[in-house]
Amino acid sequence: MTSAEGTRVSRRKLFGLAGAGVALAGAGAAAGIGIDKATGSAEAAVNTVEFEGEHQAGIVTPAQANLHFAALDVTTKDREKLRQLLKTWTDAARRMTAGQEVVPNGAVGSGDYAPPGDTGEALDLPASHLTLTIGFGPSLFDGRFGLAGKRPPQLIDLPLFPKDKLDPARGGGDLCIQACADDPQVAVHAVRNLVRLGFGVTEVRWSQLGFGRSSSTSRAQQTPRNLFGFKDGTNNIKSEDTDFLRDQVWATAADGQAWMAGGSYLVARRIRMHIETWDRETLDGQQRIVGRTKGTGAPLGQTAEFDELDLDVGGAGGEKVIAEDAHVRLASHQALNGVRILRRGYNFVDGSDGVGHLEAGLFFLAFNRDTRKQYVPMQQALSAKDAMMEYVQHTGSAHFAVPPGVSKTGYWGDGLFA
Amino acid sequence: MTSAEGTRVSRRKLFGLAGAGVALAGAGAAAGIGIDKATGSAEAAVNTVEFEGEHQAGIVTPAQANLHFAALDVTTKDREKLRQLLKTWTDAARRMTAGQEVVPNGAVGSGDYAPPGDTGEALDLPASHLTLTIGFGPSLFDGRFGLAGKRPPQLIDLPLFPKDKLDPARGGGDLCIQACADDPQVAVHAVRNLVRLGFGVTEVRWSQLGFGRSSSTSRAQQTPRNLFGFKDGTNNIKSEDTDFLRDQVWATAADGQAWMAGGSYLVARRIRMHIETWDRETLDGQQRIVGRTKGTGAPLGQTAEFDELDLDVGGAGGEKVIAEDAHVRLASHQALNGVRILRRGYNFVDGSDGVGHLEAGLFFLAFNRDTRKQYVPMQQALSAKDAMMEYVQHTGSAHFAVPPGVSKTGYWGDGLFA
Ligand code: HEM
Ligand code: HEM
Repeated sequence: MTSAEGTRVSRRKLFGLAGAGVALAGAGAAAGIGIDKATGSAEAAVNTVEFEGEHQAGIVTPAQANLHFAALDVTTKDREKLRQLLKTWTDAARRMTAGQEVVPNGAVGSGDYAPPGDTGEALDLPASHLTLTIGFGPSLFDGRFGLAGKRPPQLIDLPLFPKDKLDPARGGGDLCIQACADDPQVAVHAVRNLVRLGFGVTEVRWSQLGFGRSSSTSRAQQTPRNLFGFKDGTNNIKSEDTDFLRDQVWATAADGQAWMAGGSYLVARRIRMHIETWDRETLDGQQRIVGRTKGTGAPLGQTAEFDELDLDVGGAGGEKVIAEDAHVRLASHQALNGVRILRRGYNFVDGSDGVGHLEAGLFFLAFNRDTRKQYVPMQQALSAKDAMMEYVQHTGSAHFAVPPGVSKTGYWGDGLFA
Repeated sequence: MTSAEGTRVSRRKLFGLAGAGVALAGAGAAAGIGIDKATGSAEAAVNTVEFEGEHQAGIVTPAQANLHFAALDVTTKDREKLRQLLKTWTDAARRMTAGQEVVPNGAVGSGDYAPPGDTGEALDLPASHLTLTIGFGPSLFDGRFGLAGKRPPQLIDLPLFPKDKLDPARGGGDLCIQACADDPQVAVHAVRNLVRLGFGVTEVRWSQLGFGRSSSTSRAQQTPRNLFGFKDGTNNIKSEDTDFLRDQVWATAADGQAWMAGGSYLVARRIRMHIETWDRETLDGQQRIVGRTKGTGAPLGQTAEFDELDLDVGGAGGEKVIAEDAHVRLASHQALNGVRILRRGYNFVDGSDGVGHLEAGLFFLAFNRDTRKQYVPMQQALSAKDAMMEYVQHTGSAHFAVPPGVSKTGYWGDGLFA
């Protein structure tokens, strides 16, 4: 009688929380991809992104509104325990991304005298396009688990870039979990429950919440704005750009490690933005730094957001309209021998900085096929020359090999342990 | 040509960001209150909460999904500058809560050679039920501004409660701004722009983001869940409880300071929750600690969420079904001579705690008419006896006098400066 009272709550049945901020006809639906056909109701279908597939979800999936990212360290030296955890995590992820509890009847049906199998805070919430994406950091291949020979050559220890001010408490990690959803509570619930399942095997090294997406990843999405107030993601690799995805995002067996075929490499950079200084810059100055117009997002010298970047347009006095040190020039494929990346970052505000300002910024996430040839030269160009560097500071850094998607019977990273 | 290109972006015109997580028929609409009739379009109307009124919005307004709360210190000693800032803030709040930029054409129309008047990151977003609520901390009445005689007797320096582990960097403040919205980017934008307008007069002391609401404040809302996985807000004072609001939330002139009539007192407590320990507690144990069932939220001994709390129901062995140290017993009006409060807190996850766990908790916000007679005895009872105290730790504390609502021609706190 002090017990669960017999009422079993299914997350699937309980949609429509008033004012919950749920976009029923959301991004995944609009793009017509990643919808789980197996879920029964129409609401569930549009709220669910398929977990299984050739690639992990959460990379080309149209960026959801909220992020919870966690980096974990493995605390055991037992390879088998780690492998078992990846299996357990996969089962849990299959369920949670389908809008279910981490185990059937987890929160209230596990029996009174056992700890609940699900922590319960997402009980009444729909799947909210939850995606869970996992990655393996360089340190996982250090020999503890007999994986040294499986380390992909692309998974380098990132170099220190000019002006980096990295906080070790905000970087690195043996593993990462990227949870994206339209509801922050759903993303937090998912990470928390995976962390909980990892008790005794992993612990949280650092974690980061993000909101508002800093980049669109599908042409079906309106381009969001970052905390400098500019549209971000206009010239991103989008889920529709199948050629770029093939050439610049997805790893192949020929790249060096067969287990990574269909995977990608994830660079995470916590970038503090000095918004107070930025806000004192003139509109003209801001636009010169970015190389685009603030209102429409059009490249300087062009008129509409998606007009092609023309780096050669000359302005008054012979100077280029897009300055030599403009962010979009330095980061462009034109300036970088055709190199592109898929950006998938989020805005953050982590309280205040103790000296009177908000601790705001961009949690930059990018996927590429070879970090050595894509992210690194791009960041080198930006760190060295980008006019925007005066307004930002890189405070956290991590790098992960993101394994391919999971088959119906597989588990995260099964190729690595095969 | 490197300029704004003439394209003026109005926040009002640009709704429907795909996947933005906007609940068009959201909480404000459902409750049929606080809708701004002045806004033109149907979308704007359901997305807007009226700023002006007898009381400030953001107290009985059905709790929105996201919070950005900032406490500020006044850095000037010039009373007039402070008063002017409150006027400027009021104008900005009027506009932003109506879904407009902080100043007309702020982000892109202020002229190329001036810093933009609006920081721009909410340009394409609807009002998202934004409410902005301001409060004055005890320290504002310390004599710097000739306000010592205006300090309400209710606005005490909160006592230290048993087991408090307060971090001074997370408490206090001369002023506070509570921004609630269905989109975190809208709440962050609002706080940031008010902070920006305060440059030279105020600076940020601390700030806190929250999500998922920890309490419902209207009967039209489904009760949300906190990070212990329990429904939170079932037995809250709701916007429909006009008698309780009159008796227990709204200050009157007779309470001591006429300028506070129609206002309220806000207690903010950052409560770290040890979710890992909680998650190892049995379902039965969790339910005994709370005094309610996890699944349905029904009081122990009853069957449905909104059944009356009966503290006398006896169980096996003569013990009460709702334990002597259960949270809901100790916090109930039955145990506290009829005392109630209006809770309006949010869940938070602030990264990790550096020793392997998520830094998660509840940012507790409560409004009451006399903190001395309501919150303080309630917290004393909980700190002394609540079984839940083993799983939580109060890490931040602040107290604010929340002035009444603003008239069409008035400004925040005008009564204080009259
Ligand atoms: C706080 C930091 C940053 C801010 C505020 C920022 C902002 C922007 C903005 C506003 C654009 C133009 C719109 C677009 O095409 O998306 C852009 C483009 C771009 N950014 Fe960044 N960015 C930041 C950091 C970075 C970093 C660290 C990298 C990679 C190392 C990067 C790579 C790119 C690329 C590749 C483009 C597209 C360039 C092109 O037009 O081809 N950004 N960024
Ligand atoms: C992390 C900290 C806390 C958690 C997790 C928590 C959780 C809960 C839960 C689950 C309920 C039952 C549902 C409901 O009626 O809302 C409840 C009720 C309540 N809580 Fe808390 N609470 C916390 C802190 C506090 C604090 C600090 C206070 C005030 C000092 C407070 C005051 C109340 C009141 C007044 C009730 C309603 C009791 C009644 O049934 O009359 N809570 N809380």
